[in-house]
Amino acid sequence: MTDPQIQALRDQVDAVNVEILQALNKRAGLVEQIGARQTELAQSHFDPKRESEMLEKLTNANQGPFSSATVRALFKEIFKASLDLEEKQDKPKLKYSRKAHPQDTSVTVSRGDLSVTFGGGAKVLIAGPCSIESEAQMAQSGAFLAASGVKLMRGGAYKPRTSPYGFQGLGVPGLELGAKTARDHQLLFVAEVMDTRDVDVAAQYADMLQIGTRNAQNFALLKAVGKAGKPVLLKRGMSSTMEEWLLTAEYVLSEGNDQIVLCERGIRTFEKWTRNTLDLSAVAVAKLETHLPVIVDVTHAAGRTDILTPLAKAALAVGADGVHIEVHPDPATALSDNQQQLDFAGFKRFLEDMGPVWG
Amino acid sequence: MTDPQIQALRDQVDAVNVEILQALNKRAGLVEQIGARQTELAQSHFDPKRESEMLEKLTNANQGPFSSATVRALFKEIFKASLDLEEKQDKPKLKYSRKAHPQDTSVTVSRGDLSVTFGGGAKVLIAGPCSIESEAQMAQSGAFLAASGVKLMRGGAYKPRTSPYGFQGLGVPGLELGAKTARDHQLLFVAEVMDTRDVDVAAQYADMLQIGTRNAQNFALLKAVGKAGKPVLLKRGMSSTMEEWLLTAEYVLSEGNDQIVLCERGIRTFEKWTRNTLDLSAVAVAKLETHLPVIVDVTHAAGRTDILTPLAKAALAVGADGVHIEVHPDPATALSDNQQQLDFAGFKRFLEDMGPVWG
Amino acid sequence: MTDPQIQALRDQVDAVNVEILQALNKRAGLVEQIGARQTELAQSHFDPKRESEMLEKLTNANQGPFSSATVRALFKEIFKASLDLEEKQDKPKLKYSRKAHPQDTSVTVSRGDLSVTFGGGAKVLIAGPCSIESEAQMAQSGAFLAASGVKLMRGGAYKPRTSPYGFQGLGVPGLELGAKTARDHQLLFVAEVMDTRDVDVAAQYADMLQIGTRNAQNFALLKAVGKAGKPVLLKRGMSSTMEEWLLTAEYVLSEGNDQIVLCERGIRTFEKWTRNTLDLSAVAVAKLETHLPVIVDVTHAAGRTDILTPLAKAALAVGADGVHIEVHPDPATALSDNQQQLDFAGFKRFLEDMGPVWG
Amino acid sequence: MTDPQIQALRDQVDAVNVEILQALNKRAGLVEQIGARQTELAQSHFDPKRESEMLEKLTNANQGPFSSATVRALFKEIFKASLDLEEKQDKPKLKYSRKAHPQDTSVTVSRGDLSVTFGGGAKVLIAGPCSIESEAQMAQSGAFLAASGVKLMRGGAYKPRTSPYGFQGLGVPGLELGAKTARDHQLLFVAEVMDTRDVDVAAQYADMLQIGTRNAQNFALLKAVGKAGKPVLLKRGMSSTMEEWLLTAEYVLSEGNDQIVLCERGIRTFEKWTRNTLDLSAVAVAKLETHLPVIVDVTHAAGRTDILTPLAKAALAVGADGVHIEVHPDPATALSDNQQQLDFAGFKRFLEDMGPVWG
Repeated sequence: MTDPQIQALRDQVDAVNVEILQALNKRAGLVEQIGARQTELAQSHFDPKRESEMLEKLTNANQGPFSSATVRALFKEIFKASLDLEEKQDKPKLKYSRKAHPQDTSVTVSRGDLSVTFGGGAKVLIAGPCSIESEAQMAQSGAFLAASGVKLMRGGAYKPRTSPYGFQGLGVPGLELGAKTARDHQLLFVAEVMDTRDVDVAAQYADMLQIGTRNAQNFALLKAVGKAGKPVLLKRGMSSTMEEWLLTAEYVLSEGNDQIVLCERGIRTFEKWTRNTLDLSAVAVAKLETHLPVIVDVTHAAGRTDILTPLAKAALAVGADGVHIEVHPDPATALSDNQQQLDFAGFKRFLEDMGPVWG
Repeated sequence: MTDPQIQALRDQVDAVNVEILQALNKRAGLVEQIGARQTELAQSHFDPKRESEMLEKLTNANQGPFSSATVRALFKEIFKASLDLEEKQDKPKLKYSRKAHPQDTSVTVSRGDLSVTFGGGAKVLIAGPCSIESEAQMAQSGAFLAASGVKLMRGGAYKPRTSPYGFQGLGVPGLELGAKTARDHQLLFVAEVMDTRDVDVAAQYADMLQIGTRNAQNFALLKAVGKAGKPVLLKRGMSSTMEEWLLTAEYVLSEGNDQIVLCERGIRTFEKWTRNTLDLSAVAVAKLETHLPVIVDVTHAAGRTDILTPLAKAALAVGADGVHIEVHPDPATALSDNQQQLDFAGFKRFLEDMGPVWG
Repeated sequence: MTDPQIQALRDQVDAVNVEILQALNKRAGLVEQIGARQTELAQSHFDPKRESEMLEKLTNANQGPFSSATVRALFKEIFKASLDLEEKQDKPKLKYSRKAHPQDTSVTVSRGDLSVTFGGGAKVLIAGPCSIESEAQMAQSGAFLAASGVKLMRGGAYKPRTSPYGFQGLGVPGLELGAKTARDHQLLFVAEVMDTRDVDVAAQYADMLQIGTRNAQNFALLKAVGKAGKPVLLKRGMSSTMEEWLLTAEYVLSEGNDQIVLCERGIRTFEKWTRNTLDLSAVAVAKLETHLPVIVDVTHAAGRTDILTPLAKAALAVGADGVHIEVHPDPATALSDNQQQLDFAGFKRFLEDMGPVWG
Repeated sequence: MTDPQIQALRDQVDAVNVEILQALNKRAGLVEQIGARQTELAQSHFDPKRESEMLEKLTNANQGPFSSATVRALFKEIFKASLDLEEKQDKPKLKYSRKAHPQDTSVTVSRGDLSVTFGGGAKVLIAGPCSIESEAQMAQSGAFLAASGVKLMRGGAYKPRTSPYGFQGLGVPGLELGAKTARDHQLLFVAEVMDTRDVDVAAQYADMLQIGTRNAQNFALLKAVGKAGKPVLLKRGMSSTMEEWLLTAEYVLSEGNDQIVLCERGIRTFEKWTRNTLDLSAVAVAKLETHLPVIVDVTHAAGRTDILTPLAKAALAVGADGVHIEVHPDPATALSDNQQQLDFAGFKRFLEDMGPVWG
């Protein structure tokens, strides 16, 4: 049983709590009116000078027992809550947020009669070589992927390489080769783009544009693909927080393009036995926070071929809408990522081990 | 077609390759004999002084075109390969390794008629409160867990807390309370131990001893639990590499105890929306590298309750042998981890969402 | 100029701000009285159930425009500020905090006539081999260190090794050898301790006890060295936040021992060209936050010998009270850390390059 | 004394060592000839197919005791050493490397009579506001910086912001304002560029172009600034390894521009009390590995203003050629980075505390 003296004080606290509550809501009402007027006048809601002045007045008025530092901290929280209220009024919420858009968004990649949909319930597989290297390599790859039931072929014509002396991709001829291979084998074609100046030409050849991990916060590029009118595959930056990753989607959404597939691909940590650390919690959180489809790139997460099947199973179990995986006719001679791509036999085993899970 | 001049040179290279190969293997044979003799004399195989001398002789003998630095680097590789060969001969391999022990090890936790087995194919669930706090809390927890079909109850009597002023656990009375609760409700009892001086008393009360993440490299403690004759639940250090984690098991194994269940619980990264980053690749790799059972602690990985079901599903899909989860009668008032434990209703929903997966 | 309509609303906001301020301070006064009464009754100030009830009442009373979620968030801040106020009243502040203890604490390591003081302005150098290996190695080391002007010799008798098959240290004979060497050459002796059961014996032989990075959160050990009556060298955990590191000192302080030297030694990151990432910001922050001396272990931070001088200079420039460095008669044959210890010639160069900075 | 049986075997090993050495060098000679011929034919030296074939032949020829896996591993090292040899012959070394270019490179930023040189021994200070916001703010900043003795003013016209709704910079009018301010106050002007399409216009207005941390691996942008004919300030990516950072300089160098100043600005880790973890080891290593000047951005490393002086002192002590710091007339109202910029009074104190260190 509570001590009676304490109980009496607590009753008084309860009353003051309600007093504070009513004053807070009175304040919030006034702030709403200010916000509406600012919107009329097209003024920004956030006014740090005004906040400074209010804090100074409060500090002067404060007689304790709360210290002025505490008073400032509490009122900063109150200001922040008030600002959120103003912004909620007239500004759109974050477009990626499931609160703003509760139902799942479907993303459809299509060309002519071909079409694949992410986020509609079916699990989608994207597969193909890291780089587009030669006509022979692409002919083999296209035939093999189509025969394996893959509908979305990846292949890079622009390659982000740590060294300027590494193979940088074939460029436009690579895009042409990718598009031709896709036509020849009834596949859809996903290609990475790295430079704002290349977005238009890439959009002519590819059916889906990819933003790679190193360009995850290349904001100019995000805006450019937002305007390009093609579905976008948005890899998480290798050191992006979940929040930063979702905000990269907001850059694309803010340009009017909601055809975005998010792709978790591992983050950079101290661990050395995998190339990156696959963060499946990020997939679980992204499925809560956003209405956009989310897939998992198991190849770049693992950086090794012997754990791709369990990782892909875990990805689907955690709620991912699909899997991205690299496969090459002859990985040992590939011009990039030659230790982590599956060969055709390995890819067949992968498909068998996964079973009939793909949509 | 290859240029004929290059082809001729390549043929010569092929011949020299075989020459090098034969010399390497001749060397390896001599080294094996040295190794055998050293074993007879109980000498260490590794002799850095001898290596130094050999490197100096080779540097002196070198006439290029390889630089002396390159020669040293290549011979260091050769020495390393030779040393591995010597060590393979007479030393036991790492006991955790699946190469040494291809079949899965089963770990059985038992008391009287009760018994639960990890690693035999069935998926095991460990559940219970973070800390043992009071008789009422444990009575409620025991009854609820037993009614829910849980067989292994966790509960901490020694609590590793960042601050010395946080609740440090009830100590031996906590162990007694845990053991009593387990008896009352036909449960098995898992308890953490943090001090070598407490291992014996903990082993009297608990059916399985846990090493927590902050003691993952407390080698004295690892040896002590290796001698205590109870199954061990071995959490991964929050910044341990996979290799370091497996070597913590080796400490227990080297004391003659192979009843070890490894537990991935997330690693420390820059991400802030989860408490740790769950590393399911580590589970996949551990299942390849070791014969020991591996489970996943979803509670400490997530640090939030809204993604536990997808994480547990992913854990089982990636190949984990079980799941560890915290549940408390009233998480808001818990003396530790009060933001991340499930309440009873939440735990029921978790069990329903998971379906009949447990063994 | 501000719009007159907005100005009028702002005046009203100013008035409500003061209303809220007064109510907050009224509440704080009541809470202080409750706190005083709780102290009388020896009750804890933190009562999560009471908080739950208050939040529910406020949620029920809330009529907007603030959402109930916002109201809960704001009141949680208010509760937290109030709790801080209660705790400030009667609880000691954190003992490590410079707020509680503005002047620098001096830590003196001494034996007989010998003595060295950290934190009194002079810069202190700790040097010596990673492990105590043999009488010859220690005789050489002791003579060399003393001749070089070093006063504090390190040397490990218990070695934390990733693998149970690595050299584990000589144990008590190693402590004896260290103490003998120290006597023979008029040095003070710093030795690591890893097991609560070894603290007493280590305290007999060593003049300062070290807690290593892997035991940074071995709380039982921290308490034990807190009671041992010897100065403590407290390494930062390789994945400890600054806050966690300072709280490890609090464990020692809470046992009544304020003779603590903090030691930054690098944290674990993705970087591979250094063994750890030296975090000199942590030194700068620690010097602000705590009154305890702080030194820097450049050897374990770098894991290579070619950048020790610039790192040591930076450590002193950032405000560290000293430097810790490993030196061995023949690093290539050392039984541990053989790639990162300086040899005698390298150590001489280091002293020359540093110049007359040591106290 | 060594056991005679072991000694006899060791003598044989010494002889085989020399045999292996001679065969390795014979091989290296042949490989050099192949390399010369390939250079004649303009063929790539690296031929993974040829390596595959050689490894297969060796595996077939291997009769132990080395396992085929060991043989493959050893020969891969031999191939790698041989390839290095071939590449050394006719390819330039990495241009950033101090091996290729032992003396320090000086980088001079100039406009008309004004000029500042990095890497010539003097320590350089870059200071200014995070963003260019308004004429008034820039007029105040320019006057203050010039009066304070600063010669290089930073100021962002394009701002990389996590959210698309954050202030994105004024663009070209911002560049104009920056250039005007620089002219008015005899300052040199450093401006960030984020989009390949903006490089030309930025190069018209700014005296030095900055690549920010989020674009550190935006390879298209690196090439574009390499061609722009202006000195480049190259920030380290927040999750770039040291090697990756130096290779970003190689992208600029490979376009013929060696006027590059590297800038360490903290890496992303788990630590929360600083915004990033300043990695001064990276500065020490960069000074060894490269001939380019290196400076330290203390503002973004710390993310707080109370440790800037000790960090700047440490930066100079570790060997940095300068410091980068943000200063704003009224940080509380700044449109970006408003918690970490110094105000004018704070900057004055910083200059006083640093003393007369600047060139």
